[in-house]
Amino acid sequence: MGANILRRAMRAGIPGAGFDRDAAAVATLAAEGAQGAESLEALVAALPAPRTVWVMLPAGEATEAALRELHALLSPGDVLIEGGNSFWKDSARRAAEARAHGLHYLDIGTSGGVWGLERGYCLMIGGEPGVVASLDALFAALAPGEAAAPPTPGREGDPRPPRGYVHCGPNGAGHYAKMVHNGIEYGMMQAMAEGLDLLRRAPAPLDFALEDVTEAWRRGSVVASWLLDLTAQALAQDPALSSYSGHVGDSGEGRWTVDTAVENGVPVPVLAASLFARFRSRGEENFADKALSAMRKGFGGHLESPQAPGGGSGGLA
Amino acid sequence: MGANILRRAMRAGIPGAGFDRDAAAVATLAAEGAQGAESLEALVAALPAPRTVWVMLPAGEATEAALRELHALLSPGDVLIEGGNSFWKDSARRAAEARAHGLHYLDIGTSGGVWGLERGYCLMIGGEPGVVASLDALFAALAPGEAAAPPTPGREGDPRPPRGYVHCGPNGAGHYAKMVHNGIEYGMMQAMAEGLDLLRRAPAPLDFALEDVTEAWRRGSVVASWLLDLTAQALAQDPALSSYSGHVGDSGEGRWTVDTAVENGVPVPVLAASLFARFRSRGEENFADKALSAMRKGFGGHLESPQAPGGGSGGLA
Amino acid sequence: MGANILRRAMRAGIPGAGFDRDAAAVATLAAEGAQGAESLEALVAALPAPRTVWVMLPAGEATEAALRELHALLSPGDVLIEGGNSFWKDSARRAAEARAHGLHYLDIGTSGGVWGLERGYCLMIGGEPGVVASLDALFAALAPGEAAAPPTPGREGDPRPPRGYVHCGPNGAGHYAKMVHNGIEYGMMQAMAEGLDLLRRAPAPLDFALEDVTEAWRRGSVVASWLLDLTAQALAQDPALSSYSGHVGDSGEGRWTVDTAVENGVPVPVLAASLFARFRSRGEENFADKALSAMRKGFGGHLESPQAPGGGSGGLA
Amino acid sequence: MGANILRRAMRAGIPGAGFDRDAAAVATLAAEGAQGAESLEALVAALPAPRTVWVMLPAGEATEAALRELHALLSPGDVLIEGGNSFWKDSARRAAEARAHGLHYLDIGTSGGVWGLERGYCLMIGGEPGVVASLDALFAALAPGEAAAPPTPGREGDPRPPRGYVHCGPNGAGHYAKMVHNGIEYGMMQAMAEGLDLLRRAPAPLDFALEDVTEAWRRGSVVASWLLDLTAQALAQDPALSSYSGHVGDSGEGRWTVDTAVENGVPVPVLAASLFARFRSRGEENFADKALSAMRKGFGGHLESPQAPGGGSGGLA
Repeated sequence: MGANILRRAMRAGIPGAGFDRDAAAVATLAAEGAQGAESLEALVAALPAPRTVWVMLPAGEATEAALRELHALLSPGDVLIEGGNSFWKDSARRAAEARAHGLHYLDIGTSGGVWGLERGYCLMIGGEPGVVASLDALFAALAPGEAAAPPTPGREGDPRPPRGYVHCGPNGAGHYAKMVHNGIEYGMMQAMAEGLDLLRRAPAPLDFALEDVTEAWRRGSVVASWLLDLTAQALAQDPALSSYSGHVGDSGEGRWTVDTAVENGVPVPVLAASLFARFRSRGEENFADKALSAMRKGFGGHLESPQAPGGGSGGLA
Repeated sequence: MGANILRRAMRAGIPGAGFDRDAAAVATLAAEGAQGAESLEALVAALPAPRTVWVMLPAGEATEAALRELHALLSPGDVLIEGGNSFWKDSARRAAEARAHGLHYLDIGTSGGVWGLERGYCLMIGGEPGVVASLDALFAALAPGEAAAPPTPGREGDPRPPRGYVHCGPNGAGHYAKMVHNGIEYGMMQAMAEGLDLLRRAPAPLDFALEDVTEAWRRGSVVASWLLDLTAQALAQDPALSSYSGHVGDSGEGRWTVDTAVENGVPVPVLAASLFARFRSRGEENFADKALSAMRKGFGGHLESPQAPGGGSGGLA
Repeated sequence: MGANILRRAMRAGIPGAGFDRDAAAVATLAAEGAQGAESLEALVAALPAPRTVWVMLPAGEATEAALRELHALLSPGDVLIEGGNSFWKDSARRAAEARAHGLHYLDIGTSGGVWGLERGYCLMIGGEPGVVASLDALFAALAPGEAAAPPTPGREGDPRPPRGYVHCGPNGAGHYAKMVHNGIEYGMMQAMAEGLDLLRRAPAPLDFALEDVTEAWRRGSVVASWLLDLTAQALAQDPALSSYSGHVGDSGEGRWTVDTAVENGVPVPVLAASLFARFRSRGEENFADKALSAMRKGFGGHLESPQAPGGGSGGLA
Repeated sequence: MGANILRRAMRAGIPGAGFDRDAAAVATLAAEGAQGAESLEALVAALPAPRTVWVMLPAGEATEAALRELHALLSPGDVLIEGGNSFWKDSARRAAEARAHGLHYLDIGTSGGVWGLERGYCLMIGGEPGVVASLDALFAALAPGEAAAPPTPGREGDPRPPRGYVHCGPNGAGHYAKMVHNGIEYGMMQAMAEGLDLLRRAPAPLDFALEDVTEAWRRGSVVASWLLDLTAQALAQDPALSSYSGHVGDSGEGRWTVDTAVENGVPVPVLAASLFARFRSRGEENFADKALSAMRKGFGGHLESPQAPGGGSGGLA
């Protein structure tokens, strides 16, 4: 994703350099016109000050290590952007650490996935207003632009959101907004998935062609959405989804969403249920189920398969 | 909604007649070029055989009564379309009743709401294939059309879904699909709503401009959707949503979705939680909460406001 | 269970006759002092009028058929008791049908399972007050009696509930109360099961002996309960519950609880989640999970196993 | 609760001293035979070495401060017990801090509430085995004892759990077990509460006397439990629970349960739903509800009160 961000910037005429631990990835970028760097040190050396360095790594230790290394390499006034899926409290802390080294820091929640290069990236930015403003051309280049969606009637104020990027507030705000975005994403996906399950298991004689129903929903319905577009596309290619195991991973953001809700007393039944559905999807031993079986056997002598109780009739004089 | 369906058909050159209990509504339709009818009887008389009559009434008794009346008025070979939000089992039954009168019957789940006249209606159709095929021009006129969304790569087969309407199967299938559509809608709405609540109640110093965050999400993000478009529009006009009470109604379809899932053993934690959130939103007395208070007082002497327990330290020799 | 009800009545000196489709079961009852009957007809013939016949069969068609047969065999003034796990609306209807044959009808929710013979049965009774009163000695014999639990301070009024049986209201009320009882049972079981799962999967170095923790909880804790007693007993015999598959059945009552809640607008997030957990426990294909996988692959190129995204760093001049 | 723990120990012949910031509480304890202390310093001075000091304070800063003060006052070899509702990770950390001062440390989850003085306390203990063993007489005095519940068939091994206390593992294990206990408690309470709501809102002609139904359930039913005992008692005194506001607080433990589950990938749909139900019970502004209202108005023109859509019938030629 980091490479594609650089590519999209270059397409807009913003030059840049790239480093990746995978030398082949660097070579590919170089062949496309970027400066390739074989180390973070070389990357920093390749850029004129004041520099803007965008770190796009897995959340956690990889990001933490790269930031620490860059603290030593960068010069006061440089801008350090962290665009991964980091926990928003980490971002607030890292911003303070960067400031202690004289650096500016932006936490940018970045949505767009493998489609972002063509579709543009939705950017949720946390940091100082002046720093955000100074990089407006970059953000405008990366974002999808106003044409990506019809105008919102009555929309006024900040001209950036209609282009697909938004300054959300101080450091941490960018990743907080991204966390919430992903929480919503989990919930929307689970809603869609449960609905498809209901179609799939409809009682006879009903027998839905899911690829047709979802395709029709893409136009004029209330559930029209990019997730539906992707769903219809997957079903068009594999109507029974037989090529998927259904073991669904979860990133940190779904978990942080629930944690943050719990911490602030915000009820999120749907977002939490969506996370738990993913936990269950993985087919791991579920001790809770065994405990239920044990209790049922304890009080009812129930066998484990669902079964009607035996019975008879009696007369009491 | 019925009037707008007639209008959209007429715009495509399909003439028609309309009846509504509200004479003013009929007069308006007549002024726009439709034949106005002052009764169902007059409506039927105004149409050449074989007729197509579209009933668009609240689910339940109103629909039931109109269908019974039309059984007597229509002639064998006429087509009776029921486009309201009916329970799919009712639709299967009503189709059999219509057939007993020699009538064809289609149950059509119709999505589009107040926007349908301009945006087109997404139609989920249940009934006999031949009858559905015979009305293709009508459905094509009412549906949004292919241009309403980009093509789905790899999409083949039935040409109707890409235009926004779909023959779902035998009678009942149309309303089953609409029920599922609305169930998904409930879940997506609740996911969005919980996410907005998390933004709204973010701890200081975070303080989100929700109208900006949602506007940015409309482009390039994973949660881009028509519901998000509407949300961003509402927030653009009223960023604190202070003009809304938050007492959220629910139609029959959310309830039928849960009932159908329970009947068929399909787990729908998110769809059910979304329905229950609406029940709770209405601010009715919740006896469950009082029971919790009573239990807490019983075992812990807890006062009703959340409160830290008193305490001290002791030494035991 | 029906046989044990007869046994418990006989122990209290109330004679009776029994019929079961399984002739061996009848022979066993006869050996214990009951009159054995080889058919419903023989059962009715063996009882002096006015008769009390207790039907204890699987809910649904088996119960329905036995009741119809008894309508023809019994005489006006006889009492027909239906003690199975029937849907409360069915019980209200069946009572009206019995009355049309001049019979009295009681719907009795019966809790106690395989332990009831020794522990006594908790009886939730729906029907006419006079009929309920006329059978007080029977109910008192079947119920556990006051000694089964400490007295409730401040308890006044109806003397029957402290003995373990209760007249809940008109026909249907008995099975409504039993339905709610089972709904609560589902929720309590699931709460216990989730807690045990949390103990089981506690991170190292924590490593709980579940049979010890649950045994300690039986005394002095807030979660002390009969279900906990049974859980501790199962864990004492099989600490890893390795003899259970964890495929958990569900009876009609859990489903009717959710349906009834939905019909009356009562939010039951925990009772519904408990039911859905059972649906999921059975390891059936879950199409929803596959749909999630498909969507994730669609927008993120996510492989199916949870996996950290790749990444790198870039510099933008 | 701390004072009652001291009282119960003294009743068993274990002398002790007590300190509380409230001088009146100290005076009361002194009048009952304990040594009263006017400060932690005086408390420590009053006890012979090696000392056992039991801290029973609100979780968080109050506990943290008392422990720090005691680090300075106690001598190597003394035992520091923390019996409040602390987060288990804090307990593991605090134990290491105490060890750095040469102190032994036990984290003891303590259940029993206001009833513990008479009923005994269920104790879940984390710490070194030798230290736990050395205080066996104290724990046996505080716990309910074997007579508090019938023996578990097949129960062998550790003799402590049948008396109502359990050594759960290393430091942190005691509070982890207490956290899970409280999580289960939340779920059981919510299950009971939802069931009562279903009884309360049963459709006419059903009209349950909740105090009678719950009283009957106390004997012979599957939901028999201490929470049911308390519920029946509250209903006996106030059948409509009209003296309760239903604004239900939550302690840290319910929140930590969900956090711990999320961290370890354990699905806890019921425990989480129970926590969220408490959040909702407080009647705070729920922005999510307003967002739902806004979306519904956006797509359907729905007024805020649930309302059937208008409608009519049309004929299309």
